[in-house]
Amino acid sequence: MGELHNLISIHDLSREDIDMILECAQKMEDIAVKRSKKYSSKIMACLFFEASTRTRLSFESAMIRLGGRVLGFADVAASSAGGKGETLADTIRTVERYADIIVIRHPLDGSARVAAEFSEIPIINAGSGSEEHPTQALLDLYSIKKMRGTIDGLSISLCGDLKYGRTVHSLGMALACYDVKVKLAAPTALKMKPAIIEEMKRAGIEVIQVDTLDEAIEDADVVYMTRIQKERFPDRREYDAVKGKFRLTEPDVKRMKEDTIILHPLPRVDEITADVDSTPQAKYFDQVYNGVVTRMAILDLILG
Amino acid sequence: MGELHNLISIHDLSREDIDMILECAQKMEDIAVKRSKKYSSKIMACLFFEASTRTRLSFESAMIRLGGRVLGFADVAASSAGGKGETLADTIRTVERYADIIVIRHPLDGSARVAAEFSEIPIINAGSGSEEHPTQALLDLYSIKKMRGTIDGLSISLCGDLKYGRTVHSLGMALACYDVKVKLAAPTALKMKPAIIEEMKRAGIEVIQVDTLDEAIEDADVVYMTRIQKERFPDRREYDAVKGKFRLTEPDVKRMKEDTIILHPLPRVDEITADVDSTPQAKYFDQVYNGVVTRMAILDLILG
Amino acid sequence: MGELHNLISIHDLSREDIDMILECAQKMEDIAVKRSKKYSSKIMACLFFEASTRTRLSFESAMIRLGGRVLGFADVAASSAGGKGETLADTIRTVERYADIIVIRHPLDGSARVAAEFSEIPIINAGSGSEEHPTQALLDLYSIKKMRGTIDGLSISLCGDLKYGRTVHSLGMALACYDVKVKLAAPTALKMKPAIIEEMKRAGIEVIQVDTLDEAIEDADVVYMTRIQKERFPDRREYDAVKGKFRLTEPDVKRMKEDTIILHPLPRVDEITADVDSTPQAKYFDQVYNGVVTRMAILDLILG
Repeated sequence: MGELHNLISIHDLSREDIDMILECAQKMEDIAVKRSKKYSSKIMACLFFEASTRTRLSFESAMIRLGGRVLGFADVAASSAGGKGETLADTIRTVERYADIIVIRHPLDGSARVAAEFSEIPIINAGSGSEEHPTQALLDLYSIKKMRGTIDGLSISLCGDLKYGRTVHSLGMALACYDVKVKLAAPTALKMKPAIIEEMKRAGIEVIQVDTLDEAIEDADVVYMTRIQKERFPDRREYDAVKGKFRLTEPDVKRMKEDTIILHPLPRVDEITADVDSTPQAKYFDQVYNGVVTRMAILDLILG
Repeated sequence: MGELHNLISIHDLSREDIDMILECAQKMEDIAVKRSKKYSSKIMACLFFEASTRTRLSFESAMIRLGGRVLGFADVAASSAGGKGETLADTIRTVERYADIIVIRHPLDGSARVAAEFSEIPIINAGSGSEEHPTQALLDLYSIKKMRGTIDGLSISLCGDLKYGRTVHSLGMALACYDVKVKLAAPTALKMKPAIIEEMKRAGIEVIQVDTLDEAIEDADVVYMTRIQKERFPDRREYDAVKGKFRLTEPDVKRMKEDTIILHPLPRVDEITADVDSTPQAKYFDQVYNGVVTRMAILDLILG
Repeated sequence: MGELHNLISIHDLSREDIDMILECAQKMEDIAVKRSKKYSSKIMACLFFEASTRTRLSFESAMIRLGGRVLGFADVAASSAGGKGETLADTIRTVERYADIIVIRHPLDGSARVAAEFSEIPIINAGSGSEEHPTQALLDLYSIKKMRGTIDGLSISLCGDLKYGRTVHSLGMALACYDVKVKLAAPTALKMKPAIIEEMKRAGIEVIQVDTLDEAIEDADVVYMTRIQKERFPDRREYDAVKGKFRLTEPDVKRMKEDTIILHPLPRVDEITADVDSTPQAKYFDQVYNGVVTRMAILDLILG
């Protein structure tokens, strides 16, 4: 793991790799508070070809807590790559001369992999297309481990849009490394891709597909909610029908176990109602902070 | 004042609070030049839901002079809060995990107060709706005190758009803490809200409403100009008629006292003509620098 | 050169000035890698009224390697100057209170000069209108000197759009200080302005205008390529005809001398085909890094 060079896909990581990242994140908890000057001469370039306040600020906060410096762009409109027809390869071969590490978010599948091929400095994938968001999966795992003490042995339900959400794809693949029971709860139009289900099953994981949030909640140790986006439905009525069924409310939480944790990659719209926020099970804002700590670990393992 | 936690509204501050901020600003003059490393491990998040070069860069310059670090977004287009329907409460509960203090500019009245309710870290209001811009009022007061030696006893004229400008609202409320004489000069359609006039009068201040810039200038120690925006007038001809009457020119300055100071929150368009810039009374660019010093004081009092 | 205050135009620099900048850049090579804290209390304001990832990030990387701090805006949409009708003079008189040095990119010719007239802090022109881009010319010269050991005595071909590209204008003017042979290769509609050719000739330089890339390549020590923009041609067919003739391909490189260097200010679209990238003559990505080092030198000479 001293050899972690890029972080492109969860597929590139073994369980040992992931465990080491989670251990390193645990060590970062202290530094996250006290701050460090360790990388005060290092430069992180943030190339966000898609706007993303959350992920970008999380990486920036992580780098700053390690003492490092940040440059980049927050949306493609302000970059040459937007208006002047430059290829991603050229953008990377340029920016690698300005920085020590590149964090990239890009709307196309495979973009981070292409970036890594052309870069002589490390690349971290901060979300590519609809397929991958590995640092989100790692912070999700870290949240589970930190809050539940373990990942192995848990019953984990992924709920909402399992088809288009890159977050749940990366998380599903990551869970394949652990001894967990996974429930997938999604509307018919938004079911998890068979390839990822196959991958989890091949890894020996029990995967159960259910149709309602009710079934997903039952006995779950972790309820992982995601946003269902209106734009995914050609028919507005279909969306309205589905939306209500995958909305988590306070009465739902009452039926959960006391130590169940509710996670969400955020932003949420109304798939978790506000009355859930004050329940002890609601952990999605603490999860945000875990993202800073996990990204500190990833930066440290790559730059160190 | 060691207890200053948030800065949301001028109404939250007593005269003692304001005087302490102004004293602290005076001490910051030296540090503003020499710079400091005092807050080198602290992170300020700038959340600008409305673009504002001036206020944002002023805060950033203040934080940097104190050694601190900055992250955030400069306009809502580049943030999730723009495109993904996230509530302000959720944005705040996320960003508070990334930073040590939040500076927020938002188009809605009351937004900074809402932010403070949801945040566990300090919030500074950098302009909310049309009602409040407390750090501008404080830098205005600091400018008056620095340039005139005192605030008490002065005759202060607020001119231009007194209805929609949040700057003059906050300043008017702040002046209610001092022993001043206030003239309000505005076109009929842009008069100061009665509630703020009432507040000043209740505080024992002599408030005189006048209709022309000429009357406002007479005997004034401080002439505070503001922009009159075309968009405020349904009828273009009405705007044209008003505009000329509230434009400060060099001959106007000649009729002022020698030690009168002209202030303006900037940006100005043509309500102060360029020939005024070189008069000794023109202080609006020095006022900009006072903004950096005042914001350093506010940051220091909150973070310290 | 200890007296370098602003950097507005190549015309303001003597050969001695330029040579000193190139020498300083050479000294910066080491610091660019090791990094410095020399300017840890200095603030550079980046005012980009036109989006430019490359130039902005290059300056930021340079300032950060010197330990310095950065603030500013990346495109005019996020600045008051965009929406509120503020003059450039006012923007400058404001921002000079926030920073120690201003780097400005602006779409209008003469804008950087205006900025310098109103500023009490140093101004660096990062591209103004279609006329000037002096830091690009200096990094081009530094690239030539670093890669070829000398500038004097070389045969240098400038190719592509020589009419609208500010890069080649500044470079042409800079080359007038050296003992070089210059070939200008451009389509009829995009010839170099006579005034710049005159200036080079007056300086005693042999200037040859050619019509094809073929002629430009022959015997050249430096082939400087630029982008030909579709928007420059009223007739689409004319553009298509021209485009092919000014595209550099791998067979073209085969006909070059072994030690010829190919430069390009980037971004490139397809005027250099991808197969050229792996030839030893292709130096345009190394040129990017030289930009960081050259800008470190410029910042150091002005701030030092």
